[in-house]
Amino acid sequence: MKVLLIGAYGTLGKAVFNRLSKKNEVITAGRHSGEIHVDITDPDSIRNMYNEIGKVDAVVSATGSAVFSPLAELTPEKNEQTLRSKLGGQINLVLLGLDYINDGGSFTLTTGVMMEDPIRQGASAAMANGAVTAFAKSSATEMPRGIRINTVSPNVLEESWENLEPFFEGFTPVPADRAARAFEKSVHGAQTGQSYKVY
Amino acid sequence: MKVLLIGAYGTLGKAVFNRLSKKNEVITAGRHSGEIHVDITDPDSIRNMYNEIGKVDAVVSATGSAVFSPLAELTPEKNEQTLRSKLGGQINLVLLGLDYINDGGSFTLTTGVMMEDPIRQGASAAMANGAVTAFAKSSATEMPRGIRINTVSPNVLEESWENLEPFFEGFTPVPADRAARAFEKSVHGAQTGQSYKVY
Repeated sequence: MKVLLIGAYGTLGKAVFNRLSKKNEVITAGRHSGEIHVDITDPDSIRNMYNEIGKVDAVVSATGSAVFSPLAELTPEKNEQTLRSKLGGQINLVLLGLDYINDGGSFTLTTGVMMEDPIRQGASAAMANGAVTAFAKSSATEMPRGIRINTVSPNVLEESWENLEPFFEGFTPVPADRAARAFEKSVHGAQTGQSYKVY
Repeated sequence: MKVLLIGAYGTLGKAVFNRLSKKNEVITAGRHSGEIHVDITDPDSIRNMYNEIGKVDAVVSATGSAVFSPLAELTPEKNEQTLRSKLGGQINLVLLGLDYINDGGSFTLTTGVMMEDPIRQGASAAMANGAVTAFAKSSATEMPRGIRINTVSPNVLEESWENLEPFFEGFTPVPADRAARAFEKSVHGAQTGQSYKVY
């Protein structure tokens, strides 16, 4: 299969790349890295990416930034970054990618544990994760040509634990490769509308 | 209590007004109706509303529009209306309202059944509902001064059934007053971070 992986060089993305590239041709895209440059906050940049790459069997997003801020300091302007990137950017990868996915192909987007197990400063990220999860569940019912869509909600990753422990005290981090397996399930499997929780 | 109700003249809003006004002073706000005019898609309009009204004990949103569109025709541009209104507008009512809520006060936002029981053309609305639900759950953990936040997820309303049945075939509509009771529970009760499902 031909797989387009957006965000192939982050902690999660590298593990997803390693797993998916065993059995697939993986094209990488990213803001500052990858074979194709794309800024998912800009719909025209997404359109250009798809035009350049053409048809694929799977679009996998391991990207999208969210603002972390104490609630009392979270402004509409700060929250906008999340609305444009992890939330709207990932959804636009689907809306603009529909015509570029082969019959029976799939979309896989990334959410995260804090949507249901909240952490301090995580309200904006939770917003994005909840939005993407519900969008995927709903849009799965209307996907044409047997196209599927799922999301992966990883816990904090072992590989990020050194930096992120202060935010996730008491959480049990998971290896990035375990999260990557959920992406493999989404791309290679038959399910749709699922939120794969890797907790 | 002094309650600010945004969207008091919709099908749901009227029922919420009738129920909350039995025991509270309810100030109404809306885009084209109510004592105060507010456009929740515009943060400055929200700021002006709060400046004009001053401190309240509860902010209740029964407003916010979402785009309904077949998935294949849903563009980033169409989806933007939902991002600005039902999603971002409701969240900005919270972010900009924090300083105007009295100690122990509350926010109550509106979501909807299609986030977990999808309907055709409902992906954009589901996105908004999922976002608002997860945001409320997360932000509840960081609310200062005993302020609470909950969401109400109503099923399709009996009062809207004549118009909406084609979209909700097989759903069991609920009376608007039953949904309004969930708002009463949120405003008068002690819980926070909840999604009250009125199905």
